[in-house]
Amino acid sequence: MCNACLIENVKSSMLSRRALFTGAAAVTAASVASGLISARPALAQATGKVVDLTHTYDSDFPTFDGKPGILFDVDKTFAADGYNLFKLTIFEHTGTHIDTPLHFSDGGTSVDALPVENLVCPLCIIDITAKAADDANATVEAEDIEAWISANGEIPAGACVAMHSGWAAKVGDTTFRGTADGALAFPGFGKSATDLLMETGAASIGVDTMSLDPGNSADFAVHYSWLPSGRFGIEGLANLDQLPATGATVFIGAPKHRGGTGGPARVMAML
Amino acid sequence: MCNACLIENVKSSMLSRRALFTGAAAVTAASVASGLISARPALAQATGKVVDLTHTYDSDFPTFDGKPGILFDVDKTFAADGYNLFKLTIFEHTGTHIDTPLHFSDGGTSVDALPVENLVCPLCIIDITAKAADDANATVEAEDIEAWISANGEIPAGACVAMHSGWAAKVGDTTFRGTADGALAFPGFGKSATDLLMETGAASIGVDTMSLDPGNSADFAVHYSWLPSGRFGIEGLANLDQLPATGATVFIGAPKHRGGTGGPARVMAML
Ligand SMILES: [Zn+2]
Ligand SMILES: [Zn+2]
Repeated sequence: MCNACLIENVKSSMLSRRALFTGAAAVTAASVASGLISARPALAQATGKVVDLTHTYDSDFPTFDGKPGILFDVDKTFAADGYNLFKLTIFEHTGTHIDTPLHFSDGGTSVDALPVENLVCPLCIIDITAKAADDANATVEAEDIEAWISANGEIPAGACVAMHSGWAAKVGDTTFRGTADGALAFPGFGKSATDLLMETGAASIGVDTMSLDPGNSADFAVHYSWLPSGRFGIEGLANLDQLPATGATVFIGAPKHRGGTGGPARVMAML
Repeated sequence: MCNACLIENVKSSMLSRRALFTGAAAVTAASVASGLISARPALAQATGKVVDLTHTYDSDFPTFDGKPGILFDVDKTFAADGYNLFKLTIFEHTGTHIDTPLHFSDGGTSVDALPVENLVCPLCIIDITAKAADDANATVEAEDIEAWISANGEIPAGACVAMHSGWAAKVGDTTFRGTADGALAFPGFGKSATDLLMETGAASIGVDTMSLDPGNSADFAVHYSWLPSGRFGIEGLANLDQLPATGATVFIGAPKHRGGTGGPARVMAML
């Protein structure tokens, strides 16, 4: 979808739900599509506290398909060569990483082409830890987004909206991926939530689990709608429990290999 | 070198040159070693302008040894698998990337262990474009650092000090690596400059070329002194010409694979 079509699409889809929101939604959605910068208000109040939202990862880091996401080969050693260097084999979607539009749509935006303005942006955190404690496949739904907006105001232009399910704490445990019988089970976004977010200024979503969709998803409805819309996602976030629901600015250090479908990223937030 | 030794080392080496600087140097060096955060003053004045200091890279991106630094294998396709995914082979030191202490010292800090406080920090830019235009192997020397301090004030605690030689503009050309006869030739840091920087608050250095040392270096004196001191470097920076000598905050999105010697990073600056 080209940029002009995207803007039109966002505008027309907004008409159907405009009654829900007042004021800024129309402006913010158009601002995102045109790449305006929105980090300024948050930064002007920065305290300088930096929180690393990135997991350290290696061959044991949990992956969606259960195979190692990264392999290390020693290429040079200090003893033999005078310096140390690894040759890495990386399957793009491992560790704390980016899902681009290209990952789920041929011709979609690749990881090197994500607008830089959407990589430094306000961070909105939706806390679903309570329902995730009861249901491993709990989802962020439209009413969670509406409750967040009621409590915190509009989703800012260019924002990253992240699900905090408490799953990051399980990353060293088999329950990060699923149940004892081997079924995938972890929280994610429901399509009602991401459909609603398309009417706001949100440019990206993030999760503290292995996938934007919940573990028991049969149709990957969020992957197949959010990403092809030209927006991106972040999977495997850490340390969201150290941040408030609103007010932080997030740096999304997406990798920049040409034409990539995503890849390991360094993500840090600042208060 | 452990943290306590590093602090002692910094303190004692500072004694020898303390006459050069007044006031803040002792405080700032200790602050760096203890990981204090220093981005706050710059951020409080942020305008929200974001400049991407990262090159897009692929198998054709110039490397020190002349071999491709990244290889792409198609692992999944939208047509056959419902999604696109690449398997990447990455030699750590390619593209815009980090050099850690571990790269040039066994037991040095690996890329996942760099203090997050040194990854969001003030950016000081040393412009040597004039002498680099005359000499492809031009170097930043101690007097360039001293001139920068005279003009802009002390190097802030935790700062990244970057050489702007104008080389980023040559990245698509063979002159990025060297001369027509195949010799490596590009600007870098001289050891007089990095020795002096060890007495300031600088936590990292950056270059817009392929190496911290100049192309004609026979001994890699900067790699073998700066990195083993516990500090890190960034090679292959882009777009430094779009920033002032001081006042920007840089976000150094170092990769976080466990035990890595460095690797491709997303680096962005904010004004
Ligand atoms: Zn993914
Ligand atoms: Zn390197």
